[in-house]
Amino acid sequence: MAGIQARIESALERTLPGSDIVPARLHAAMRYAVLGAGKRVRPLLVYAAGEVPLAERTEEALTRLDNLACAVECIHAYSLVHDDLPCMDDDVLRRGKPSVHVEYGEAIALLVGDSLQSIAFQSLADDRSTLDANTRMAMVRILAMAAGSRGMAGGQAIDLASVGEKLSLPELEFMHIHKTGALIRACVTMGARTSGGLLESELACLDNYAHCIGLAFQVVDDVLDAESTTATLGKTVGKDADDNKPTYVNIMGLSRAKAFADELRAQAHQNIARFGKRARRLEELADFIVLRKF
Amino acid sequence: MAGIQARIESALERTLPGSDIVPARLHAAMRYAVLGAGKRVRPLLVYAAGEVPLAERTEEALTRLDNLACAVECIHAYSLVHDDLPCMDDDVLRRGKPSVHVEYGEAIALLVGDSLQSIAFQSLADDRSTLDANTRMAMVRILAMAAGSRGMAGGQAIDLASVGEKLSLPELEFMHIHKTGALIRACVTMGARTSGGLLESELACLDNYAHCIGLAFQVVDDVLDAESTTATLGKTVGKDADDNKPTYVNIMGLSRAKAFADELRAQAHQNIARFGKRARRLEELADFIVLRKF
Repeated sequence: MAGIQARIESALERTLPGSDIVPARLHAAMRYAVLGAGKRVRPLLVYAAGEVPLAERTEEALTRLDNLACAVECIHAYSLVHDDLPCMDDDVLRRGKPSVHVEYGEAIALLVGDSLQSIAFQSLADDRSTLDANTRMAMVRILAMAAGSRGMAGGQAIDLASVGEKLSLPELEFMHIHKTGALIRACVTMGARTSGGLLESELACLDNYAHCIGLAFQVVDDVLDAESTTATLGKTVGKDADDNKPTYVNIMGLSRAKAFADELRAQAHQNIARFGKRARRLEELADFIVLRKF
Repeated sequence: MAGIQARIESALERTLPGSDIVPARLHAAMRYAVLGAGKRVRPLLVYAAGEVPLAERTEEALTRLDNLACAVECIHAYSLVHDDLPCMDDDVLRRGKPSVHVEYGEAIALLVGDSLQSIAFQSLADDRSTLDANTRMAMVRILAMAAGSRGMAGGQAIDLASVGEKLSLPELEFMHIHKTGALIRACVTMGARTSGGLLESELACLDNYAHCIGLAFQVVDDVLDAESTTATLGKTVGKDADDNKPTYVNIMGLSRAKAFADELRAQAHQNIARFGKRARRLEELADFIVLRKF
């Protein structure tokens, strides 16, 4: 995984304008928001899903995935910057550093998020990729749907509306399917569709896998939020509970939430079993998402 | 123009999710931000530039332009919603109504802008268009560049940094070339490139035209801001001067600013003279931009 993470870092480094380019402060803040930290789970999923249709992992195949990986990470980073703003979750710590608005001010943080979203689509449109235009156009559609009001941003709106509400488990799941799940599913779908080799039934299995790990990701987040320290997590712990937000831990209790995460991991594995060795990295990522300590 | 404006309204109406779709409040706020108001200058430019390569305006040609027109208007509307936020220009009135954050709260306004940007790219990726994938991909690239940190959002950052500064005329122009000019140029380029018929030299003339009217748009905005009432303009007048922002009026004086707008209009006309009748609507738009009273 470390090799791919280094590859992602260098692709992001190339994609973001240098901090010497006008407006320099905005570009510096964009780089601050994106580079040098983050687990890169979403780009890792793009590469891992991109391997499933392939007999072997070639440099050419990886190059086809670079721009997709950059695009999903820029969308994710933009969402973190905007979510941390005072009018949203008002969080001062992110990825172990002061949030962008704490470091650069709210107005720049707003523009950082806006610009990162633009650069995500620019990255998909970029010529360096060897993907044909029809496939890249499909990627634009998938990413825009996943990011927008019927995906991630919509999930954030549902989240806002849930503060102080007592949600049922299906309602909580509905929120997370949008807020975190939509982008994670997009990562797997985009990666898997870079090569034309998979059947629709195989793509459906990958989508089920993505659904399971997307949900598991959030369950584990809630568990870590209840069990960890701010120093380990690099973001403020206990914040959702303090903000009176529903979490898996306060709806299910800690031990049932942990068991649920394990069950989702097992389901994720089941859904990719048919791919054998070609899904090894997807397996590893499911394990990483559930077993991580930060 | 009224016919095309009605066409734009109906295309936007189709593109935006209904306010009965979850999350309903976010979708209602998106519709509030976009529908029923606005001069639609940017989509009008898309259609007008789209006519230049054509012998006649057919329904098929107009259909090819609908998604582009929606996309640029969604980007423009998103920028207005974010610019009005308290951390930016803090403006409570827009298009004659309370700003989105006044009506729906800051968090929803943030998400409205974010979602409108996503929907702009989704609109370009949409299948209904008869444009081939390579051309649509070029449109994604042009729009993403124009909207992002080296275009519109970058111009906003330069604007923020200029508050309380004494800018020279070239510095003020540099800001507006990004903040307003980039998107206006993108509208003309996108429209003109929907048909393959123009020479590079002809596209360059259209780009010069767009540069002139983009700048004229801002000069006239500053003049109106100095001369009009809030009721006529539908947004708070005198706000830039109160906020200690540089404007063409406070750098050049009112009468020189008006003369400059006229000069830009003449230059715009010159740049499209070679197209004869096919540029009639672009001519009308240059006149509209400079002679408008709101």
